[in-house]
Amino acid sequence: MHTDHYELTMLQAALQSGAAHRKSVFEAFARRLPDGRRYGIVAGTGRLLEGIANFRFGQPELDYLRRTGVVNDETLEYLAGYSFSGDVWGYPEGEAYFPNSPVLIVESTFAEACILETYVLSVLNHDSAIASAASRMITAAGNRPCIEMGSRRTHEESATAAARAAVIAGFDSTSNLEAGRRYGLKTVGTAAHSFTLLHDTEREAFSAQIAAFGPETTLLVDTYDVEAAVRTAVDLAGSRLGAVRLDSGDLVAQAQWVRLFLDELGNDRTRIVVTSDLDEYAIAALQSAPVDSYGVGTSLVTGSGAPTASMVYKLVSRTDDAGVFTPVAKAAKNKTSKGGRKYALRRLNERGTATHEIVGIGRPSEDDGNDRQLLQQFIKNGELLPGWTGAEGVQRARRRHADTMRELPAVVNRLQRGEAAIPTIYEED
Amino acid sequence: MHTDHYELTMLQAALQSGAAHRKSVFEAFARRLPDGRRYGIVAGTGRLLEGIANFRFGQPELDYLRRTGVVNDETLEYLAGYSFSGDVWGYPEGEAYFPNSPVLIVESTFAEACILETYVLSVLNHDSAIASAASRMITAAGNRPCIEMGSRRTHEESATAAARAAVIAGFDSTSNLEAGRRYGLKTVGTAAHSFTLLHDTEREAFSAQIAAFGPETTLLVDTYDVEAAVRTAVDLAGSRLGAVRLDSGDLVAQAQWVRLFLDELGNDRTRIVVTSDLDEYAIAALQSAPVDSYGVGTSLVTGSGAPTASMVYKLVSRTDDAGVFTPVAKAAKNKTSKGGRKYALRRLNERGTATHEIVGIGRPSEDDGNDRQLLQQFIKNGELLPGWTGAEGVQRARRRHADTMRELPAVVNRLQRGEAAIPTIYEED
Repeated sequence: MHTDHYELTMLQAALQSGAAHRKSVFEAFARRLPDGRRYGIVAGTGRLLEGIANFRFGQPELDYLRRTGVVNDETLEYLAGYSFSGDVWGYPEGEAYFPNSPVLIVESTFAEACILETYVLSVLNHDSAIASAASRMITAAGNRPCIEMGSRRTHEESATAAARAAVIAGFDSTSNLEAGRRYGLKTVGTAAHSFTLLHDTEREAFSAQIAAFGPETTLLVDTYDVEAAVRTAVDLAGSRLGAVRLDSGDLVAQAQWVRLFLDELGNDRTRIVVTSDLDEYAIAALQSAPVDSYGVGTSLVTGSGAPTASMVYKLVSRTDDAGVFTPVAKAAKNKTSKGGRKYALRRLNERGTATHEIVGIGRPSEDDGNDRQLLQQFIKNGELLPGWTGAEGVQRARRRHADTMRELPAVVNRLQRGEAAIPTIYEED
Repeated sequence: MHTDHYELTMLQAALQSGAAHRKSVFEAFARRLPDGRRYGIVAGTGRLLEGIANFRFGQPELDYLRRTGVVNDETLEYLAGYSFSGDVWGYPEGEAYFPNSPVLIVESTFAEACILETYVLSVLNHDSAIASAASRMITAAGNRPCIEMGSRRTHEESATAAARAAVIAGFDSTSNLEAGRRYGLKTVGTAAHSFTLLHDTEREAFSAQIAAFGPETTLLVDTYDVEAAVRTAVDLAGSRLGAVRLDSGDLVAQAQWVRLFLDELGNDRTRIVVTSDLDEYAIAALQSAPVDSYGVGTSLVTGSGAPTASMVYKLVSRTDDAGVFTPVAKAAKNKTSKGGRKYALRRLNERGTATHEIVGIGRPSEDDGNDRQLLQQFIKNGELLPGWTGAEGVQRARRRHADTMRELPAVVNRLQRGEAAIPTIYEED
């Protein structure tokens, strides 16, 4: 029951007026990107689609709604039989989006589509915020792998979704086991400071870890003195020591002398993992340091300053009494919503670089060969189309993200604040 | 399986070294408050305690861990039999906290306590961030009720937890039905712009809503022209019209003329609800306007600039081979962790106003009558003590929040950035 109270009151009033059965088109989009961002990345679609296909009101939920009088019996009866039977299109997961990109389009009766509002927005707003931040971190990290380890800084279920979104945007792995289980992601992790503190000496702790996982493990070397810890680690694991992890202090300087020290000790193949409250800016600052991979936590799962994508879900068209679709839009002064069912194209120049986001109403103008269709169908007459969900959906979205990034202009690689990388243009036929 | 990979690798290595069975004390605390905040509010404890009491590894999780080789058979066997059998103390939910307040203390074997790390932190960091932001909004709103309506801007499960945390910090109600069902919260909601747009005219939409819910309903009046909408609303509902909702534009100016207009029309009892992207600062700015209640969304569920409470979970004491507890702490330069099992007191002056947060190791000095004990026991030998969880726990936490706020110095009412309202002092016996 990921539904806001008002969706059910609207449903009840619309059932009463008869308008509930009008065919309706709802669109999810962001009016703007988070302050200073050049692009956003769509994420959450795969798990959202599974959720829509399985969206039901169970007996405990219906009992609650009856007991509290949220809605009347007629509405309860409608909810008891609810199952989404409409169509859903949208940007494939992993795709870049810009202001007013129609990221998701839901077409069904008003009744069916209206009660999905909160759920659609929760999933897209959360997951897209994480993927958008993650994508910038991946750009900053260049070829060095990033590891998602932010579970502890966000709600336990958001954590799983965040790990999924991070991997779509190019993260190599996650610390979150549940995300590994649900979506087939690679999980990693070795030990915290508490493991060292649990033992009487650091040497005992390292020995125990090596005994359990072999010398290729990653040892956390900053519980007491880093130099002594590195020496102990190499002493115990030898040249096969997998990696050392640094989690505090001046990481650039530390990585430099630890690298030299490891090399001196003959451990030139032992990697250096850094983890302390990194964000895309800290990663960029570490690019000149001899670091092998980045563990990212807090800033990733909180969207690095933009914890929500601020998408909205708006009715853009619905049928009238004659069954004819009519575009509709709110007329408020400071919000420009365009009524009508949209198409969306990414316009590319002759070198294959994106130049515009084209959002239009009606039919697209003749394709000149350089426009890429953005909308894909995900659900048809209530049936999930294959390939978008589960572990398969995650891998597909990851490829889409990589492909999209190659297509966008170079300005997306800049971390500084600025305008959207490509302008959104409205076309009307 | 809200567990990070490294908790299980630590477990395995500690089972191997034998240290897994050492008695251990873990402490959850925040090293600092979010930038400029005067205080934080503990939240999530109630749902965390239920989660700890029910923390198990099911067959699908164990199968996953076996298949992926995350841990060995001995560790899997341990996990299959896992059930928390230790003790948990902490600040009661709704209580204020300050830097280094020992918000939660978990005492058990290292094995049992270590694998709760991610779960403990996820719940406390998320819910406390929301409650801390909500508390400031409640202060800004004075006697005017606040309604939580941010579900759509955050992960669908975070949304339910956020609604719960907001009510603990004084919010009147929520739009989130699932939170209403789980925790017995009051839910509210009427209609969105889509409901008006669905109908051929605003008049038809309002009529349908009034027919379904009576004239006491709240009508959303800014889809087209606010003045015309208010006139239509009063025309249809008469003097019993419950409220009008404003969701865009200059809310202060708009509330003022809508109030006058309603009064002119004889609707002096019709309330005005405002909802457009409010935060504590916007609420404060609206206090001089004739507004009856505030609907708060995005800024609430994202912690109003501080989406996580940044608490950490640290081993502070553990037994040695002789079974004697030994304080432990990481020795990194820029992180001051104090080893040892803590007590915590709020020192009050003769007027009952809080002056210090006393955190000590060992036994508290003689109580001078003005110190309030902060730590309560929640779980004893694995058994949940009554009163902290479910709907009862939420109401208790809400009272605790209200009581605590009365006790804190007046500086907590300031929205401007500053230092913690009371200093945290370490005592050692």
